[in-house]
Amino acid sequence: MSKLFLIGAGLMGSSLAVALKRAGAFARVVGYDVDAATIARATASGVIDDAAPNLAAGARDCDAVAVAVPPQSIAATVVDVFRALGARSVPVFDLGSVKAPVIDGIVARMGSVPTPFVPCHPLAGRELRGTDAADGALFVGRRVFMTPLSSTSREARDAVAGWWRACGADVQVVGAAEHDAAVAATSHLPHLLSSAYVATLAERVDRLARFAGPGFKDFTRIAGADPELWRQILVANAHNVSADLTALIDVLERVRDGLAAGDEAALADALSRGAEAKGRFRDGGG
Amino acid sequence: MSKLFLIGAGLMGSSLAVALKRAGAFARVVGYDVDAATIARATASGVIDDAAPNLAAGARDCDAVAVAVPPQSIAATVVDVFRALGARSVPVFDLGSVKAPVIDGIVARMGSVPTPFVPCHPLAGRELRGTDAADGALFVGRRVFMTPLSSTSREARDAVAGWWRACGADVQVVGAAEHDAAVAATSHLPHLLSSAYVATLAERVDRLARFAGPGFKDFTRIAGADPELWRQILVANAHNVSADLTALIDVLERVRDGLAAGDEAALADALSRGAEAKGRFRDGGG
Repeated sequence: MSKLFLIGAGLMGSSLAVALKRAGAFARVVGYDVDAATIARATASGVIDDAAPNLAAGARDCDAVAVAVPPQSIAATVVDVFRALGARSVPVFDLGSVKAPVIDGIVARMGSVPTPFVPCHPLAGRELRGTDAADGALFVGRRVFMTPLSSTSREARDAVAGWWRACGADVQVVGAAEHDAAVAATSHLPHLLSSAYVATLAERVDRLARFAGPGFKDFTRIAGADPELWRQILVANAHNVSADLTALIDVLERVRDGLAAGDEAALADALSRGAEAKGRFRDGGG
Repeated sequence: MSKLFLIGAGLMGSSLAVALKRAGAFARVVGYDVDAATIARATASGVIDDAAPNLAAGARDCDAVAVAVPPQSIAATVVDVFRALGARSVPVFDLGSVKAPVIDGIVARMGSVPTPFVPCHPLAGRELRGTDAADGALFVGRRVFMTPLSSTSREARDAVAGWWRACGADVQVVGAAEHDAAVAATSHLPHLLSSAYVATLAERVDRLARFAGPGFKDFTRIAGADPELWRQILVANAHNVSADLTALIDVLERVRDGLAAGDEAALADALSRGAEAKGRFRDGGG
């Protein structure tokens, strides 16, 4: 009887558990979370079948381990998992948005990355948080990036890719550094911009709410996500995000200074290059 | 037989014509556009019933005039309309995103704003452009801001409000200055941010497209709109937009400088204040 051990029963982990059970990839999901109330709710709602009292107990007899904990805890948790597994070789994968720091954190603690570990990043999410928002269709049609090392076991890699495909996802393999730089630009920077923008309106919400149309709603949807989760993501990928942020600030300053001087060239350039690039992203699926 | 004269058969004007005809508010729509090809297409597709050879011919015998031209042309066009109407008192309204410059532009040319003129701004739009994208449901459930002056005729104001309601819109009356400052914050600044952000990715679209998920798509939807239209909107509202942009650049610089110095306080503050304000916008309908 195949058993998945899920560590972390937040939105992502809970949605994965529901999706994998529904697909028949595992017969049972045993869950562990540092927050006892979370794991109790996940058990009561049927998101997981059984609660493990601790990590070592959950790892016993399992056929795979999904590490769905916050970014800053992933590397240490993966190391704990491999220590609990001992000599057993079982596929272990995470769901973190930034990959190089996970790999580096494991190397720093263990000297190398265990071959059954497959770093993963599903490009999926919701405005809602926690196990109560679990959605078995969260990964349908979404991309999942896998950033295996050359030493990663082929068996583990194929097994993990198969589980993601069973959830309806499109699996793509990419290097960790390329992945982290790319999602800094396409995901982490927009998140910071949307949040920082809404933050500047905080004092005026009551007056401004009726002037917020569909464009505002779309532009600010991502600002509603968990701020502590996103703090950890942005800190983990700070190097890449800062480079893109500096380039953007530069454009914004040139637009503003141009407008102040009655020169619309920088504004016109940003608008036309933005519309042109958006068209090419749209053609490419973005 | 009631007749609407539509000046400008782009997305907004064409959608208005379809919606008003569908609602039975007017029996006929006569259209004029500086671009002859546009008006030919609008006539062929049935968006308008007849093409006027020029503005004076269209204004003859009409019962209302909708001025749906680009922002920088609104004031001059409204003045031309009133000159063509002569002594006849007919409701005239525009659809511009920035109201004070329209009012000021009319005053500069005529000394005062004719009492049948009702400044309007429907908070609606689409990524698509032009008469071919006309959508009779574009205004259903959307807000339309009217910024009448104290001298504006009550009859014109009520008639125009009634037409917008016939299109399914929610009409709200507000002062022009308050309106322009509010939409700078909720609509014009996000548009500039989304465009400037995508512009910084222009060289990397081919590499980045597969990393663009649902969050990217929502955040950048508004960047796909007509850059020349938005250049005119942002220039018309530059004073208000610049003030909000400066506040935002300040936040972004503090976040970036903090990250470079290993200080996450500014980042954490932007994320938590952003998520909190977004929740209050959501409760208020934004």
